Amino acid sequence: MSTPLFSGLASSVDDDTALLQQPLLLLPSVSNTTAQVAIVGSSVCPIESLDYEVIENDFFKADWRSRGKIQKYQYIFIKWILCFLIGLIVGLLGFFINLSVESIAGMKFVVTSNIMLTGKFMVAFLVFASSNLGLTLLASLITAFVAPDAAGSGIPEVKAYLNGVDVPAIFSFQTLVVKVVGSICAVSSSLNVGRAGPLVHTGACVAAIVGQGGSKKFRLTWKWLQDFKNDWDMRDLVTCGSAAGIAAAFHAPVGGVLFALEEMASWWRGTLLCEALFTTAVVAIVLRALIDVCLRGKCGLFEPCPTIGRSGNYKKFHCPHGYHNDLASLFFNTNDDVIKNLFSKNTDTEFHLSSMLIFFAARLFLSIFSYGILAPAGLFVPVIVMGAAYGRIVAMLVGSNSNLNPGLFAVLGSASLLGGSMRITVSLCAIFLELTNNLLLLPLIMLVLFISKAVGDAINGNICDIIMTLKGLPYLKAHAEPYMRQLTVVDVVRGPLQIFHGFEKVGNVVNVLKTTQHNGFPVVDKPPFSASPVLFGLILRAHLLILLKSKTFLRTPAPAGPYAIRRFSDDDFAKWGLGHDDNIEDIELSVEEMDMYVDLHPFTNTSPYTVVETMSLAKAFKLFREVGLRHLLVIPKLSG
Amino acid sequence: MSTPLFSGLASSVDDDTALLQQPLLLLPSVSNTTAQVAIVGSSVCPIESLDYEVIENDFFKADWRSRGKIQKYQYIFIKWILCFLIGLIVGLLGFFINLSVESIAGMKFVVTSNIMLTGKFMVAFLVFASSNLGLTLLASLITAFVAPDAAGSGIPEVKAYLNGVDVPAIFSFQTLVVKVVGSICAVSSSLNVGRAGPLVHTGACVAAIVGQGGSKKFRLTWKWLQDFKNDWDMRDLVTCGSAAGIAAAFHAPVGGVLFALEEMASWWRGTLLCEALFTTAVVAIVLRALIDVCLRGKCGLFEPCPTIGRSGNYKKFHCPHGYHNDLASLFFNTNDDVIKNLFSKNTDTEFHLSSMLIFFAARLFLSIFSYGILAPAGLFVPVIVMGAAYGRIVAMLVGSNSNLNPGLFAVLGSASLLGGSMRITVSLCAIFLELTNNLLLLPLIMLVLFISKAVGDAINGNICDIIMTLKGLPYLKAHAEPYMRQLTVVDVVRGPLQIFHGFEKVGNVVNVLKTTQHNGFPVVDKPPFSASPVLFGLILRAHLLILLKSKTFLRTPAPAGPYAIRRFSDDDFAKWGLGHDDNIEDIELSVEEMDMYVDLHPFTNTSPYTVVETMSLAKAFKLFREVGLRHLLVIPKLSG
Repeated sequence: MSTPLFSGLASSVDDDTALLQQPLLLLPSVSNTTAQVAIVGSSVCPIESLDYEVIENDFFKADWRSRGKIQKYQYIFIKWILCFLIGLIVGLLGFFINLSVESIAGMKFVVTSNIMLTGKFMVAFLVFASSNLGLTLLASLITAFVAPDAAGSGIPEVKAYLNGVDVPAIFSFQTLVVKVVGSICAVSSSLNVGRAGPLVHTGACVAAIVGQGGSKKFRLTWKWLQDFKNDWDMRDLVTCGSAAGIAAAFHAPVGGVLFALEEMASWWRGTLLCEALFTTAVVAIVLRALIDVCLRGKCGLFEPCPTIGRSGNYKKFHCPHGYHNDLASLFFNTNDDVIKNLFSKNTDTEFHLSSMLIFFAARLFLSIFSYGILAPAGLFVPVIVMGAAYGRIVAMLVGSNSNLNPGLFAVLGSASLLGGSMRITVSLCAIFLELTNNLLLLPLIMLVLFISKAVGDAINGNICDIIMTLKGLPYLKAHAEPYMRQLTVVDVVRGPLQIFHGFEKVGNVVNVLKTTQHNGFPVVDKPPFSASPVLFGLILRAHLLILLKSKTFLRTPAPAGPYAIRRFSDDDFAKWGLGHDDNIEDIELSVEEMDMYVDLHPFTNTSPYTVVETMSLAKAFKLFREVGLRHLLVIPKLSG
Repeated sequence: MSTPLFSGLASSVDDDTALLQQPLLLLPSVSNTTAQVAIVGSSVCPIESLDYEVIENDFFKADWRSRGKIQKYQYIFIKWILCFLIGLIVGLLGFFINLSVESIAGMKFVVTSNIMLTGKFMVAFLVFASSNLGLTLLASLITAFVAPDAAGSGIPEVKAYLNGVDVPAIFSFQTLVVKVVGSICAVSSSLNVGRAGPLVHTGACVAAIVGQGGSKKFRLTWKWLQDFKNDWDMRDLVTCGSAAGIAAAFHAPVGGVLFALEEMASWWRGTLLCEALFTTAVVAIVLRALIDVCLRGKCGLFEPCPTIGRSGNYKKFHCPHGYHNDLASLFFNTNDDVIKNLFSKNTDTEFHLSSMLIFFAARLFLSIFSYGILAPAGLFVPVIVMGAAYGRIVAMLVGSNSNLNPGLFAVLGSASLLGGSMRITVSLCAIFLELTNNLLLLPLIMLVLFISKAVGDAINGNICDIIMTLKGLPYLKAHAEPYMRQLTVVDVVRGPLQIFHGFEKVGNVVNVLKTTQHNGFPVVDKPPFSASPVLFGLILRAHLLILLKSKTFLRTPAPAGPYAIRRFSDDDFAKWGLGHDDNIEDIELSVEEMDMYVDLHPFTNTSPYTVVETMSLAKAFKLFREVGLRHLLVIPKLSG
């Protein structure tokens, strides 16, 4: 019974490389050290999980204590530099994507229009269709064959990462390149997809790559960045990167920070707020500067508008001079221009109700089908476009019964659809405030957001969570489910537990690592090495693998001494990189080595988090989630 | 040595009523149950601390399990209703304060101006001075004699509350009334004080009073609000209330939420963000509606402006018709109008450099002295005014070397001084965006904020933290200090530990409660009631007092049975109210009763948080802070 109920907790609890996610719940019985372990797993996809706990073993403690004030300031300084770099790169990439889309899509529309002007409609259709097909194919092919992780918006993956789930290769350099190129192609191809989501993923990728400090694979690493090769610094940088993505997509620095806070991040703290705002400020300044350059006429299709069959906002299409085709202005246009058209103030009579209904229905179905494509594809912009059309329709139906502007209705329509699908409020308020630069709209937007969120919440979860579930990404919610109050931690513990002794036979270690999927093992000292059996701490699979690889073995079960610690450097225990891990199968040991011993003490975390067996699952869950744990030891009622 | 170092952790760890704040660190030695306790206290002021931990004892568990889905929805529904009420009341109060200040100050300026027009300058001075003195006296007297807790801005107190420190009477009804009336008087009296801080405190008071569900003292309670009489729901509501305060002060709903998040709150979660935004949205809508009413000319001095000696923005003073006195326009004016004047765009030549220097210097010294007064007094507006003057001075010095507007310089000056004193960034961005409704300023404001914050941080802490320290309010920072990495929890444990047995003599309980200041005690079962001594859990002083008061005693040390639980209702264990607590001295027991036993088991929290003795203080601190604990048991290395 407990397996499905517990999958929420179990799935993101403890896992490194494998198909199983299992929390390690250690429960020694009172009388002896035979104990049980919970393997509550659900096989999803190969997923790592992040480690936010401070690991206190002799090795790391020695490292910690060697750090002084200068290192602290150096750390802070480098962190701000990294935020600056992330902001700069994301700003440049955002501008590059925008410019490319404008250029490619603009070129496509101009060429097609020009052919139409000569009366060759079939040729125009073929040119238009084949250019779209070509762009879509390119986007899909590079996604499928180079970086499948770049498909979709990427927001669910980044959100899962920030929750503690590390999907391999999600932040690799290939993913970044495919995300940028694929996003340009997909958006230019008139697919009904957006670029905001991909930009969030792009921002997160940039952050992860910058924070990783080069590539270990290519022996290209910066020593001074090694401090940031741990899960919690990486998490901070990725949060900043995702804020930068939204800031670049909507030119909304405050909105970006709030989006990262409200939708993306699972953990948050004051300093991070400041760092994220700094990152988005850099993005905003970079974008402003580049747009200024463009306004002075120095880039791509922002240059003098072609006068015939131009790529401007309103489309003449078949209409006589001075008129425009409203449906063509909606369909035969980039999404940005469509949004501008629909949000405009003095356009009360520019669109027919019939055109708007056709447009809304077409966009609704197209967005559903487009999102399924194996290419970078965001949901923000399609939803905004649909919502704007919906708002316009409502404005037309209400007609003269309201003195509100149809453009305002379009803004409110977009807000309502975004609120109803994404279920975010504060960040949307800020984004709309920054998009429309109109404070007077704020109370109305807030009202619409609360209504749409409430209606949506009554029906299902938010779209990001639904996609995460579909993709099999485990996600640990902020709150315990009510049923968890009825269970104690003992109720979800299952055996048998695998434990190691302080001095363990190499063969045993190899055997246990090969036959289980656990990522942490309790270390117990037994007589004659202690007066009575004592729980010494918890050792991680990753650290065991490093020990085995280094072959720091002993002929007898005796303390290895400081020599064992000095053999290793920080770098050996630093995260290897994104999506790369050691594997027990890759370590080859001789029969003689298998008979030797290894001293686990210096590498065992001597202060793992523990809870008493009577604690309710809900309370343990709270501890687990708020401190960001991977392993939790369940101990019996203390008898002193 | 550990006492001063540890005071940060110690002070907010564990305390209910007393002069001592002490964490309860239980350390049973391995061989027997004699154990030690840490009493690491610093006597500050009488301060309670809040309890955010889920207390799992038989009594509460029975209560929990009786709750179904309907109760859950009812809870959510009532929470939103409460947010609505808080927003509504804070909006109305904010408007009332504004209107009163405008009316009183306006009246004062008009009367003085009219007397000046007749040439009686001495009389005018006396009228002006005596009205200011009268208003200041009134503000100070009611503060001193009715509610001393209403003095100052209140932001440090609310911030400390949200960190877990409950200053008695900080949210009482008297405090609210004095805060509102005193704030009106102080601001109208031309003291250099603001009303934003007091509005935050007002909002927090409203939230606490609304959430408390009536007054137990006056037997006026609403049954359906009893669910909210606990520390964590109260904390959420107070957070919403403080957001509403800033929203009302600056007409900045998004800024208000961010301020609460960035500056005020120590704990935060997604739902709270949404609730806070809803509250501020209500504030914004209420204010908008009321201002609309006023614009139609239906309230106070917003009505037709008096044409002679009017209370408008620019002051004629001694000048001929068509001219104005720039210094009078700054000094002889409300702060709001001064800010409007200084932020205005087309006022490049309205002010002289000399006037501006005099004004800046005067305001700087006045604000320092004004803030010390025993009356409600905020710091936001004085800092904004000073900063605006400073920005204008810079603009004049830069002169034609910059093509930026002097009004813009004033805005940037305000941002820099606010950023340099409050050290907040994101919320100030949002507040300025909402104040100026000008998106183009944002990158410049961000730049200024980051520079001023960095410069300030290099020198000292933010002003709110400094005031908290001055007031002796303990505050648990989000991060452990570096030295805490060098200590283990055992290093800060001190004895002797007071423990209770599962069946304890009433006399012992009374004696221990009278002779110690601890607020939690470990409960240990010993033979013959268990095979070996076993730590059963932790019982709170507050619950012991309730048990003693109810006189649920037994003649022999035996289980009290379900009867003991059924004697009590939720209400008995619900928080008594704000700043009211039982006291051991008030409980009178006969000699016979003192010889009886009490069964502590049903009321003991059986799953207290525990850490192993080898855990570093830094790691324990993280647990303590992030889960919001008051008590932490230190246990020895497990021997099974």
